[in-house]
Amino acid sequence: MSFDRGRHTLHISAKLFAENRKRLATALRGKAPAHSVVVLAGGIEKNRYNTDAEDLPFRQESYFFWAFGVHEGDCYGAIDVDTGKSILFPPKLAPDYAIWLGKIEPESWFKNKYEVDEVHFHTGNSITESIQKLGAESVLLLRAYNEDSSNWLEPPTFPGIEKFKTDTKLLYPEFAELRVIKTDAELEVLRYATKIATDAHKEVMRKIEPEMYEYQMESLFRHISYYTGGCRHLAYTCIAATGENGAILHYGHANAPNAKLIRDGDMCLFDMGPEYNCYASDVTCSFPCNGKFSDKQKIVYNAVLAATNAVFEAAKPGVRWTDMHILAERVILTHLKKDGLLTGEIDEMVEKRLGAVFMPHGLGHFIGLDVHDVGGYLGDAIPRSQYPGLKSLRTTRTLKERMCITIEPGCYFIDTLLDRALVDENLKPFINAEALKAYRGIGGVRIEDDVVIWEKGNENMSHTLPRTTEEIESFMHKARNPGA
Amino acid sequence: MSFDRGRHTLHISAKLFAENRKRLATALRGKAPAHSVVVLAGGIEKNRYNTDAEDLPFRQESYFFWAFGVHEGDCYGAIDVDTGKSILFPPKLAPDYAIWLGKIEPESWFKNKYEVDEVHFHTGNSITESIQKLGAESVLLLRAYNEDSSNWLEPPTFPGIEKFKTDTKLLYPEFAELRVIKTDAELEVLRYATKIATDAHKEVMRKIEPEMYEYQMESLFRHISYYTGGCRHLAYTCIAATGENGAILHYGHANAPNAKLIRDGDMCLFDMGPEYNCYASDVTCSFPCNGKFSDKQKIVYNAVLAATNAVFEAAKPGVRWTDMHILAERVILTHLKKDGLLTGEIDEMVEKRLGAVFMPHGLGHFIGLDVHDVGGYLGDAIPRSQYPGLKSLRTTRTLKERMCITIEPGCYFIDTLLDRALVDENLKPFINAEALKAYRGIGGVRIEDDVVIWEKGNENMSHTLPRTTEEIESFMHKARNPGA
Repeated sequence: MSFDRGRHTLHISAKLFAENRKRLATALRGKAPAHSVVVLAGGIEKNRYNTDAEDLPFRQESYFFWAFGVHEGDCYGAIDVDTGKSILFPPKLAPDYAIWLGKIEPESWFKNKYEVDEVHFHTGNSITESIQKLGAESVLLLRAYNEDSSNWLEPPTFPGIEKFKTDTKLLYPEFAELRVIKTDAELEVLRYATKIATDAHKEVMRKIEPEMYEYQMESLFRHISYYTGGCRHLAYTCIAATGENGAILHYGHANAPNAKLIRDGDMCLFDMGPEYNCYASDVTCSFPCNGKFSDKQKIVYNAVLAATNAVFEAAKPGVRWTDMHILAERVILTHLKKDGLLTGEIDEMVEKRLGAVFMPHGLGHFIGLDVHDVGGYLGDAIPRSQYPGLKSLRTTRTLKERMCITIEPGCYFIDTLLDRALVDENLKPFINAEALKAYRGIGGVRIEDDVVIWEKGNENMSHTLPRTTEEIESFMHKARNPGA
Repeated sequence: MSFDRGRHTLHISAKLFAENRKRLATALRGKAPAHSVVVLAGGIEKNRYNTDAEDLPFRQESYFFWAFGVHEGDCYGAIDVDTGKSILFPPKLAPDYAIWLGKIEPESWFKNKYEVDEVHFHTGNSITESIQKLGAESVLLLRAYNEDSSNWLEPPTFPGIEKFKTDTKLLYPEFAELRVIKTDAELEVLRYATKIATDAHKEVMRKIEPEMYEYQMESLFRHISYYTGGCRHLAYTCIAATGENGAILHYGHANAPNAKLIRDGDMCLFDMGPEYNCYASDVTCSFPCNGKFSDKQKIVYNAVLAATNAVFEAAKPGVRWTDMHILAERVILTHLKKDGLLTGEIDEMVEKRLGAVFMPHGLGHFIGLDVHDVGGYLGDAIPRSQYPGLKSLRTTRTLKERMCITIEPGCYFIDTLLDRALVDENLKPFINAEALKAYRGIGGVRIEDDVVIWEKGNENMSHTLPRTTEEIESFMHKARNPGA
């Protein structure tokens, strides 16, 4: 069977997840104890506080989804390491479910839909009995650390688990590593999600006008993503920042809810991406709300665009991401120097971490089932730096084919950081304080693409967006003058 | 200060919440021990599983919001019962918040915005010290039961709490009861939220066509609610059911995600409502997707409409809601009898609970800061019934002025219930099995209004919707033939 949201949306075969399960069993074979079975638990529906209303429809946990592609809550799944055989355990629903929530499907329906080897409802000891039939002696459980949140996904339990040896250490690094390297089938979904993101961004660029509100652009983005792309969920909270709000890196949350009036002359920094079948997109467009870059906006935009282009060319397999971050900094600092905001040697600026004043965040992050996808500090990663900018990197690994990563350099005028830099003996000699003043309050620029790393040259999944200042101005002009 | 989402949206004064706090202090005075202070905790931002991404922007807990109107997460609040004096305790933010999340506001900013008497960041013992200055000896904490979910909101704690006598029983029933009876200021917000809901429903009725997908109508509804109404959150998951899905009462969740193609001839049952500044709307429209009722659709629709009208007229202060439920059943059964689906005495049908075969849910529920608002089984409620239909009532109270309640009778053809009824010796004698067959698969009809109870006659906040079959057909025809 396949997943889709209608004729106009992408069809995704259940084989995507069968391949993932096979990869997991293969990776564990030889490393896991004899007769090991992986047991995973999916997510459980949650309500708003103590009420019976949900905030958003249930969204599956990403590790479980990677392995089973199952949308239903309260499921377990097992994968036999030796044979690759898979069992799905959906919940046994009470008869009244049919009245309130929908048809109660039999085990065979799940088997057909998700193309697993067996399906048993989890009741009593059914998980234990089923994996005993596979010959399970050891059970591998997922205890997964998230480097970005510092939170753990705690391992599941089930009735009868005490009959097995359990291991909660082996699975996580192997599993996360497989999630880092995308299959062809996964890339097809990621390309689709990114295409929907770019389509929605372009519609926002067509429709935006001064005197609208930021959140109206968020609303339009969400609508296009869902209506035309079938994307019910966003991969993250929309950042629809205009003017000075472009300098708030994670704008858009409840305390800063995209509620500002868009003023003529405002630069827009719109970082928004839907997910399709749980696969994320993450795209940022920066453009002037009135379709015409001011001189200063052009200077900042071109600095960031040059950084994006340089990194896209240089980010080949074998290259360390940390070096790409530094490369982006160098290009941006070089532009700011050329334009009279900075003075001095670029090498010294990098050494003193001046780049982090203008780009405090990391250059990019893996993307997949999570917008900030897992595994950034596994493999050949070097430990997280303590230095400004570098400490915000979500990965320090060398690149490999089939990694999906965002390239998202930015240049911001953040009062807090500028004020700190201007009283920092190490940094203030580089800064032309007088020239900088004119940039205060203009916000920032970020250009963010979703990129697949390939030996033969990288693939920019967000390639359909207008890119240069000329292309953006022309695109917005045409949308406003359809007859011209 | 006031809350709004721009010039075109409703402005809500912080005085709404000051009035609420005053009501709470007044209600507790004389009942609480001497020198009591209420201490409430707001909600805390949560991420998706172990990641650093949120599913939806933070939404405040409703009790806390009722008292303080505060959108920020991780706050506490205190109200002195004797004096009504209020203190807000926002979190003390780390300096880097200014880089990533926005400006760090001083205590005075919160005081001005939310019009409380004092503001102190909660750090160390600041809550304890602040309420000691009020002379607090007892602290009243909220431990709130939710009758719909059977879940508890557990009472908060804070450093130094052991210095006070604590009570977790007194506050809940008093607080919930105040939430049941709406102030003028609250009603203004509820009217606005319901107006946005009806505007969005009407836009869906204008735009719907066969061969669209259900979720596209959900998407359009969400967009209108947000873009024109400033409603970022929904009050509940959209039910955009068409055809046979109209018989799934809580359709729209992750396992039944509004993904069906809309076929010519399908009846629509769209139960969708946004919230504005946390105040909910909850509106259901039923109409044919092609703008033309079939004979059977008209029969079912008119049965439900007659029930709605009868209840709206009869639901006066002093009337018990349970009786309104029975009234709705009677009207629907009478119609189904007249149209040849049923035979026998209506009194006997009600006695045997035949009504619950066609309307298994309760007639309606309180609405306010929660879509299923609190307090349904407080006051003069009679204990929850064990009988079909009646056991699903979310309140059994007698009505009072300023209660806001949904009136939402429905008539559904649910295979599970029809099959059970046809083998039930008590029920099958009433059913014309042959006539019923033709109704299988057509789904259901629900008409749901948000209503304020008044002595002088009830107020239907969703009154702008086309209502009769003629009005609906005319409305949809005009939208499709704008020149005519």
